[in-house]
Amino acid sequence: MIIGGDGYCGWATALHLSARGYRVAIVDNLCRRGFDASLGLETLTPIASIHERVRTWGEVSGKHVELMVGDVCDWEFLSQVFTAFRPEAVVHFGEQRSAPYSMIDRARAAFTQSNNVLGTLNVLYAIKELAPGAHLVKLGTMGEYGTPNIDIEEGYITITHNGRTDTLPYPKQGGSFYHLSKVHDSHNIHFAARAWGLAATDLNQGVVYGVRTEETVAHPALINRYDYDGIFGTALNRFVVQAAVGHPLTVYGKGGQTRGFLDIRDTVRCIQIAVDNAAAPGEMRVFNQFTEQFSVNELAAIVGAEGKKMGLDVRVQSVPNPRVEAEEHYYNAKCTKLRDLGLEPHLLSGARRAAAARTRAAPAPPPAPSRHPVLTPAPPAPDSLLCRRPRRLAARVCAALQGPRAAGADQAGGELEGVGRRARQHDERGGRGALSGRAARRARAHAGLRRGTSQAGIFGFSFVCVARFCQSTVAQPGAA
Amino acid sequence: MIIGGDGYCGWATALHLSARGYRVAIVDNLCRRGFDASLGLETLTPIASIHERVRTWGEVSGKHVELMVGDVCDWEFLSQVFTAFRPEAVVHFGEQRSAPYSMIDRARAAFTQSNNVLGTLNVLYAIKELAPGAHLVKLGTMGEYGTPNIDIEEGYITITHNGRTDTLPYPKQGGSFYHLSKVHDSHNIHFAARAWGLAATDLNQGVVYGVRTEETVAHPALINRYDYDGIFGTALNRFVVQAAVGHPLTVYGKGGQTRGFLDIRDTVRCIQIAVDNAAAPGEMRVFNQFTEQFSVNELAAIVGAEGKKMGLDVRVQSVPNPRVEAEEHYYNAKCTKLRDLGLEPHLLSGARRAAAARTRAAPAPPPAPSRHPVLTPAPPAPDSLLCRRPRRLAARVCAALQGPRAAGADQAGGELEGVGRRARQHDERGGRGALSGRAARRARAHAGLRRGTSQAGIFGFSFVCVARFCQSTVAQPGAA
Repeated sequence: MIIGGDGYCGWATALHLSARGYRVAIVDNLCRRGFDASLGLETLTPIASIHERVRTWGEVSGKHVELMVGDVCDWEFLSQVFTAFRPEAVVHFGEQRSAPYSMIDRARAAFTQSNNVLGTLNVLYAIKELAPGAHLVKLGTMGEYGTPNIDIEEGYITITHNGRTDTLPYPKQGGSFYHLSKVHDSHNIHFAARAWGLAATDLNQGVVYGVRTEETVAHPALINRYDYDGIFGTALNRFVVQAAVGHPLTVYGKGGQTRGFLDIRDTVRCIQIAVDNAAAPGEMRVFNQFTEQFSVNELAAIVGAEGKKMGLDVRVQSVPNPRVEAEEHYYNAKCTKLRDLGLEPHLLSGARRAAAARTRAAPAPPPAPSRHPVLTPAPPAPDSLLCRRPRRLAARVCAALQGPRAAGADQAGGELEGVGRRARQHDERGGRGALSGRAARRARAHAGLRRGTSQAGIFGFSFVCVARFCQSTVAQPGAA
Repeated sequence: MIIGGDGYCGWATALHLSARGYRVAIVDNLCRRGFDASLGLETLTPIASIHERVRTWGEVSGKHVELMVGDVCDWEFLSQVFTAFRPEAVVHFGEQRSAPYSMIDRARAAFTQSNNVLGTLNVLYAIKELAPGAHLVKLGTMGEYGTPNIDIEEGYITITHNGRTDTLPYPKQGGSFYHLSKVHDSHNIHFAARAWGLAATDLNQGVVYGVRTEETVAHPALINRYDYDGIFGTALNRFVVQAAVGHPLTVYGKGGQTRGFLDIRDTVRCIQIAVDNAAAPGEMRVFNQFTEQFSVNELAAIVGAEGKKMGLDVRVQSVPNPRVEAEEHYYNAKCTKLRDLGLEPHLLSGARRAAAARTRAAPAPPPAPSRHPVLTPAPPAPDSLLCRRPRRLAARVCAALQGPRAAGADQAGGELEGVGRRARQHDERGGRGALSGRAARRARAHAGLRRGTSQAGIFGFSFVCVARFCQSTVAQPGAA
């Protein structure tokens, strides 16, 4: 059972597990789409409805994913779902996941804590009462730890104090009401493990980047969402978009803020590893789920250096920090447990090493085949959902960023070609006058993009470029 | 502003501060009375309505306490209250405070976390937006810490790890969804202090005993509540009642569970100290608010020894522990900060030393006068609220426990005499037939008490005895 299976990580995970033979049910109340609607935001990649997603996945893969639309905060719904599906593992992504969203105002702070904490509390009771023995795999965040001046361990720390020693939950200092909601979850889950013998894995995930997994590129209607706005978009996403459109990379404050990052292809693999290696009854196991750590300045440098090689004029601009956070601090977080269980990470930091390797190495061998069966990508479909958004700047930058490609990477080129063609057709038909409803709205966004006046349009660039960039670098010898 | 000012600690604190010249507003949604109604529980001391309490306090003291009945989870109400009263300090008792209540079922667990966490979140926003500069004095609990195998510090601990050092929030391991709600509060408050510069004092309070303060004994309608049931009553309260009625003291499991305790007269003084010595802006200061620590077995031994001296047959019986908790553990919690600020505790452990002192000392000097003006106790009022409950067993034990009295202690004897007279009148009138409604219900409870068949009645005994017992011991030289 994937709670939050319509979201960024949840959707990719649901398909990843379904493709590998797991019996999957998606539980989601679709509130993430509601946030976009209320705040006027939109994923850069135009995603299909969850019903169309699931239907398409069935057609493409021959696998059935159950869909249950409803709210885990609604106990009546949740208990029905548990009774009907009887999960062996519950992967819980179903939370409001944006720190900026939680800090917009009091109502959204309260919503975030209520939705996240009470939803997870319901999930704990549902497991206890309706699916005893089911393994909870809960998404936490590295942001629970804050930025302590000592090494960050994985969930627990052994403390010697006044001559005595104990291993205790690692002290938490969440930096927003969102991060704190996950801190609260962790404490509640820890108690449920101790008191009820519940088996739980708390995955303190870093910042996820990338939009493509083997499954989400298999058909246009399966494409994952990509957020690049100030609420749901993260630093790396924003930087790539900014580089693409010639906007300075906006670094908050001094830029020494350091966090853990990982590729979405590692997210889905980590979930699978956690599900395959269940925690023991009574254990709340904690994994720090990231593969590399970067400061904001280091991120900006990577994006800048790669962009400049492609002929882009990438500048960096420090802007006043809207957050209260340490801008220069010690940061050293451990992340060995998932690797010990078999995670083979896709690394962004391999880029520079790979670039150096290319200058001295023999011709690179073909990319290593995936250990899992790769779905055959569907042919580009010019009239599909993926073609509804114009993206001229994106196409320019994406072309500039081309490098050696891993299997399936060609799909993006097709997508972007289709986008460009559709956009030109809109232009030729006279734009708005010939369209109505959703099509008209998209055309207006397109017009804004062309004039550079639409905030939503000005950063129009697909993170596909970054995903491809990552794929190219990890395929190089020595890059990992 | 006292949020939760109708509750056990809140009411005593409101009167304590009002008596000393503070401008006081009570904010309460009266949900504690609702819990009694829904669970069929009742305070042993029959308390007046909050409206009658406040009115009586005005008559007795000449001081006005504002009363605002409503829910802090209701932002519209809370913002009106803050705008109207403009507090300089916000003392926040307004939470569901029973661990067993929070563990009755899922709905009450969710209520506890929702009510406590979102209520406190609203209070944080109210201070930030409507009373910036106001000092938050928030009641936490020693139960937030759990029972670590190292010393418990006051809120923070300095950790040296892999050659580096930081002072971090003390790791928390709450033992119920109630305790966890306070853990969540502490994390949220800590963030509000860091992010908004809010000044906060988090008081991790131990188990409170006693029912009498200088103010609550000043008039029958001011008497505080005394809970002795399995949901809201605590170990010491239950033991005293059990000893009084000849029931074995029920020790959960091995009885090695150790906790911090304090007299309610110290609770109100601690709040005053915290209010008088505000935290700095941006600081979440943590005080461990208790004065002594005892194991359950030690508590039973104290109650048993004192009871036997009074001729009571006090036995101890181990019963299966309904909680998941360590029954034998290390426990050493620090509690020096409030004493450093002037707290002079009333100690229960002085009892044995005082008893020893009496055998060798000259006649004891009269009790030291209180440092605060003592309100003149009202004369016993046979027809007052305090006389509505029959309490023959209580009267017997209370008489047996008589010792040297501090000022005002005579009031309890009057109360109990009145109770006994009223009960006899009920008996003489033929009991139930002559009564109706609330009176009939009380009469039936009385009948149950006499037959020993009513669970509510069988433990009919006033904690007044313990309060008097404490007063007597701390008045002895060398007892503190």
